[in-house]
Amino acid sequence: MVTHVRRPGAGDPVRAEVVSVGTELLLGQIEDTNARWMSERLASIGVDVLRRQTVGDNLDRIVEALGEATGRADVVLVTGGLGPTQDDVTRDAVARLAGVQLERHPELEDMLRDKFRGFSARPMPASNLRQADVPAGARTILPERGTAPGLIVELPSGTTIYAMPGVPDEMVEMMSGTILPELSIGAGSVIASRVLRITGMGESAVGEALQDLFDGSANPTVAYLASMGEVKVRLTAKAASERAAGDLLRPLVDRVRERLGDVVFSFEDESLESTVLRLLQGHERTIGCAESLTGGSVSARLTSVPGASASFAGSVVAYTAAAKRDVLGVSAETIARDGVVSEACALEMAAGARRVFGADVGLSTTGVAGPVPHDGHDPGTVWVAIAAADRSHARGFHVPGHRDRVIRWAQQAALDLTRRYLDGRPLPASDLTV
Amino acid sequence: MVTHVRRPGAGDPVRAEVVSVGTELLLGQIEDTNARWMSERLASIGVDVLRRQTVGDNLDRIVEALGEATGRADVVLVTGGLGPTQDDVTRDAVARLAGVQLERHPELEDMLRDKFRGFSARPMPASNLRQADVPAGARTILPERGTAPGLIVELPSGTTIYAMPGVPDEMVEMMSGTILPELSIGAGSVIASRVLRITGMGESAVGEALQDLFDGSANPTVAYLASMGEVKVRLTAKAASERAAGDLLRPLVDRVRERLGDVVFSFEDESLESTVLRLLQGHERTIGCAESLTGGSVSARLTSVPGASASFAGSVVAYTAAAKRDVLGVSAETIARDGVVSEACALEMAAGARRVFGADVGLSTTGVAGPVPHDGHDPGTVWVAIAAADRSHARGFHVPGHRDRVIRWAQQAALDLTRRYLDGRPLPASDLTV
Repeated sequence: MVTHVRRPGAGDPVRAEVVSVGTELLLGQIEDTNARWMSERLASIGVDVLRRQTVGDNLDRIVEALGEATGRADVVLVTGGLGPTQDDVTRDAVARLAGVQLERHPELEDMLRDKFRGFSARPMPASNLRQADVPAGARTILPERGTAPGLIVELPSGTTIYAMPGVPDEMVEMMSGTILPELSIGAGSVIASRVLRITGMGESAVGEALQDLFDGSANPTVAYLASMGEVKVRLTAKAASERAAGDLLRPLVDRVRERLGDVVFSFEDESLESTVLRLLQGHERTIGCAESLTGGSVSARLTSVPGASASFAGSVVAYTAAAKRDVLGVSAETIARDGVVSEACALEMAAGARRVFGADVGLSTTGVAGPVPHDGHDPGTVWVAIAAADRSHARGFHVPGHRDRVIRWAQQAALDLTRRYLDGRPLPASDLTV
Repeated sequence: MVTHVRRPGAGDPVRAEVVSVGTELLLGQIEDTNARWMSERLASIGVDVLRRQTVGDNLDRIVEALGEATGRADVVLVTGGLGPTQDDVTRDAVARLAGVQLERHPELEDMLRDKFRGFSARPMPASNLRQADVPAGARTILPERGTAPGLIVELPSGTTIYAMPGVPDEMVEMMSGTILPELSIGAGSVIASRVLRITGMGESAVGEALQDLFDGSANPTVAYLASMGEVKVRLTAKAASERAAGDLLRPLVDRVRERLGDVVFSFEDESLESTVLRLLQGHERTIGCAESLTGGSVSARLTSVPGASASFAGSVVAYTAAAKRDVLGVSAETIARDGVVSEACALEMAAGARRVFGADVGLSTTGVAGPVPHDGHDPGTVWVAIAAADRSHARGFHVPGHRDRVIRWAQQAALDLTRRYLDGRPLPASDLTV
């Protein structure tokens, strides 16, 4: 059922919905990056996005979707369907919903002709002039990059529709230049977030450990996001100013830190590889790697960070037993006696990486990524090790799942072992018997 | 207004809606890649996706969104909100909408305990058992990778709800294994696609070369998708059977092949790294790499493919001049005279990789990833080279843009050089003066 709502009073957050128009979106041919960008910016100025919708280039369905959205929200932001082609029908839908006619604006016609001359030597197709049609009574947002004007329509219910082109650059231009500033005036509060990143503890265990801190708390709130080998905890507070939101978050971050301890590798949404490089640079140490089952991916993650060359010396991806022996100096005895998937091999690889690259810290990975067993070990068997002047340590464990998951978890374990060593934290024991 | 619809008769396409659940989506914290993937796959089996919605982790709003979607569509696919934490309420919403209770399934409890033992030595948090709760009468989809079962609920109206976890891998597993096969049976026509993958030619040049083949053609259609260093051309045909759709596509694929030639590295949506490994295996050759600016990422891509160990011998990530000299045997003269960002260095690195790993083909990358210049060269300067018994070849070029773009294009160029060499195709010349 549709209930018409009015713009909220001062202090109440503005409620928004986002509608993306485009059949190519529903066919999955392109990613709807607009919706995410808009959601993030709206949240940052304290506007609550309650729902997002995606509809195709179909007049009836756009009208239906806009009708539902305008029935629930204070503002509705629409992208797409404002172009010159036949299937661009968003302006017709907005006019129908507002119960008004489209009117051609001569000054927009002039603008379109001017812009077209800049783009092309050809005469402008007549269809382009559809972009000069505006629902009666609407305001327009003149485009800088593109040709389609944005539309601002106030409905009798008090709800405002902002319609923008679907081209990301053109949407960003209108959001940043006109719409976000307009909405900021109406928004009563800001939203601030802190993201803590965790490895070595599952999502449900993290949730269990923190649950009572957030039980019944509507502000701040907590959200968990698990990706392979990592959990993000996002704490979000809403307040009248950024400072006040920060004051709400700070004591909570401290309590989460007390609860979770060493498994939190960043309190500032820093990636594990960046954290390791920051610690290496802080301690003026260099690292060399010896990778078997991770196949170069630990090095690739480290070197993806700008400035990595200050601390990263190099890596040997030793996929074969011969490479482990000849390049890294793993002893023939170890390979014969313990095999290449073993604590001894991991430790000798780490020592070899340190020696080959003249690095302060050597880091190694060996194991079985799968899908088939190797050297008598099941897929998912992983050893990681570090070697340094003062300490060597290996950790063996088993990762259930597919090849990409095993590789990812091995990367996480290797980088986390390095992080813990550099930061003087306890090093994790092995789950595997040696 | 909600109008209940029935499942369409044979021949009518199934109408679907997609609902994504997650406050982190509405806050713009993560991209909703699931919705796009699902849309694309549903389109490929002839299911019409009419609308997509995104709602937060809020029971009432999820129920409202599901109510609207089930009122319009034959099937509703929901992702997210099936995890173990407090904010995961999709199963409650589905139960409420269906008007049934949640029932705890002992066999799911056992599965959860078993899985948890595989993941962790700790006892399972009690909250995990929420994932064993199932709306009365629902079918479940047992998870392979994750822990949360999928849910299949038939409403009295005839509409079916499929609920899946939001973790992309887990969603893909359930869609591919259960849901898409189930829906394929109901769909009246099939949509078949062929994806051609191209590197070394830009999206607009590809579009220009193919434009007249598709002018005015509604079936088959063409779509272009550019990602870093690669263009995908998707040809899509709709027909009564997979065979008939294939017959529509085949002559078109041949014409595209004639037009584009060597830049097409796959006609079967195969990744560049898989293509290289397939060629290596076909020619019974092995490869060794020497990576500087790509930092291990070429090796990581090759070893991400199951079975890579048959052809991939190893890699030296030689980030420093010392490592290039000491580990790969690049001559001190070359480093002093030409520098580490040079054709000579790239060729000696490739030869070194071949020698160090006793491989048939050596592949190297060197250059400046950025953001700052190195050894007198601007960011974006790249050399890649191959060395084999019969041939050596280097290619230098410049990539504008950020560090990740430079690294990605260097990977593409290195892998594509190997592909062309192995496949007996012309090797590209350098754009850089030596």
